[in-house]
Amino acid sequence: MEKPSAASAHAFTAEERAAVYHAIFSRRDVRGQFLPDPIDDDLLARVLMAAHHAPSVGFMQPWNFLLVRSPAVKQRVHDAFAQANAEAALMFPDEKRELYSQMKLQGILDAPLNLCITCDRSRSGPVVLGRTHIPTMDLYSTVCAVQNLWLAARAEGLGVGWVSIFHETALQDALGIPHEIVPVAYLCLGHVSHFNEKPELEKAGWLPRLPVADLVFHDQWGQSDSVGNEALTAKLAALQADIQERGIFPA
Amino acid sequence: MEKPSAASAHAFTAEERAAVYHAIFSRRDVRGQFLPDPIDDDLLARVLMAAHHAPSVGFMQPWNFLLVRSPAVKQRVHDAFAQANAEAALMFPDEKRELYSQMKLQGILDAPLNLCITCDRSRSGPVVLGRTHIPTMDLYSTVCAVQNLWLAARAEGLGVGWVSIFHETALQDALGIPHEIVPVAYLCLGHVSHFNEKPELEKAGWLPRLPVADLVFHDQWGQSDSVGNEALTAKLAALQADIQERGIFPA
Repeated sequence: MEKPSAASAHAFTAEERAAVYHAIFSRRDVRGQFLPDPIDDDLLARVLMAAHHAPSVGFMQPWNFLLVRSPAVKQRVHDAFAQANAEAALMFPDEKRELYSQMKLQGILDAPLNLCITCDRSRSGPVVLGRTHIPTMDLYSTVCAVQNLWLAARAEGLGVGWVSIFHETALQDALGIPHEIVPVAYLCLGHVSHFNEKPELEKAGWLPRLPVADLVFHDQWGQSDSVGNEALTAKLAALQADIQERGIFPA
Repeated sequence: MEKPSAASAHAFTAEERAAVYHAIFSRRDVRGQFLPDPIDDDLLARVLMAAHHAPSVGFMQPWNFLLVRSPAVKQRVHDAFAQANAEAALMFPDEKRELYSQMKLQGILDAPLNLCITCDRSRSGPVVLGRTHIPTMDLYSTVCAVQNLWLAARAEGLGVGWVSIFHETALQDALGIPHEIVPVAYLCLGHVSHFNEKPELEKAGWLPRLPVADLVFHDQWGQSDSVGNEALTAKLAALQADIQERGIFPA
């Protein structure tokens, strides 16, 4: 799978690189395109294993994978979402509230499979290599597992949507999760009719995609105009135009 | 790039899926194998763009990318690491302290490029769609950007190591980052002599890889023996043996 080159002896071939970028750039947060078709066990095992091979601080692997198929449990989770979502709508200014209320923000009952990925912060004892000074590192490891699963799922043609509009305790109670275990991500999984070309919030005009070149600094915070970095800035802008306007992913 | 099949009309081809899994399963946290070769701007633009296309809560895209090449700045960051690391060593019980002190946990000065990925929690105003009830969602989005970059880098043959042994304020001060901006990940990037076959902490005997089947629950926390799930359990165990003992990744 490796192609020697001047740049890197360990780079994938152009076709393999393109596949990885295809997964990254065509991954979507799916809320409304789920099909009822069941998910094959082989496929499910692969995406769970992808999650399990995320980086984890101190190799603590703090995650669990709680698969939800029971309609009754899904309904309890949906009830918890509905309550939080009604509260959420009231938090937005008038001009955004109507758009907010119109958007479908979850597929809990539509998706054949739901999956809660949790973080057990005590997994390998109180002192964790790499977590000694930044205590959130175990939560971050769990998020890496989510993103691994999400990209593997995209390659498998499986849609994934992350639902985050819950009171944490309501979600824990619906799933019997002890309150010291953090439910980092509640995901809806299923085959889909289609993947949207762009993120739904971008399409709906909620917020625009930011120009990436504006987000890059050099050596110190806020320093964006260093001499010698014009080439990188130009390349970032060209790449963004390719993706955004022409739907061409890098390879 | 799409291959219609009974399972999913949107699945990648077998070769493309294998490439995505290759990136996921051969990605490593690199500390000691960096080469001094510079990183091409085109390559850097691609991996930064991969990060920028992570999912973000409410499409807020809260990240910035602070590229560090200045030897003086790297030295300040290394000093911050060295202080925190000396403190960290004292936190481990006697039987782990010696092993801890022997391990190389960062490549700050060796890697040609360092990159701090930050989270601006105020990026799109105080009320963020999807962050109304779980305030850490913006930090989690930033971690998704880290993992996208890490996998893209693996496909490019570029090594990435995440250094987390810092006092947050010391890292902010070394990089001129305002204290309200969270430095989520400090990464070392560079071409590498080789990628290790297994994680360094696993190889060093710090902790073992957990059997993934033990981490999977069904419908409620702790419920691992549901009738009808034996097939998934068996498939997970077989897949883990393939990866762990035979070095065969799924496709």
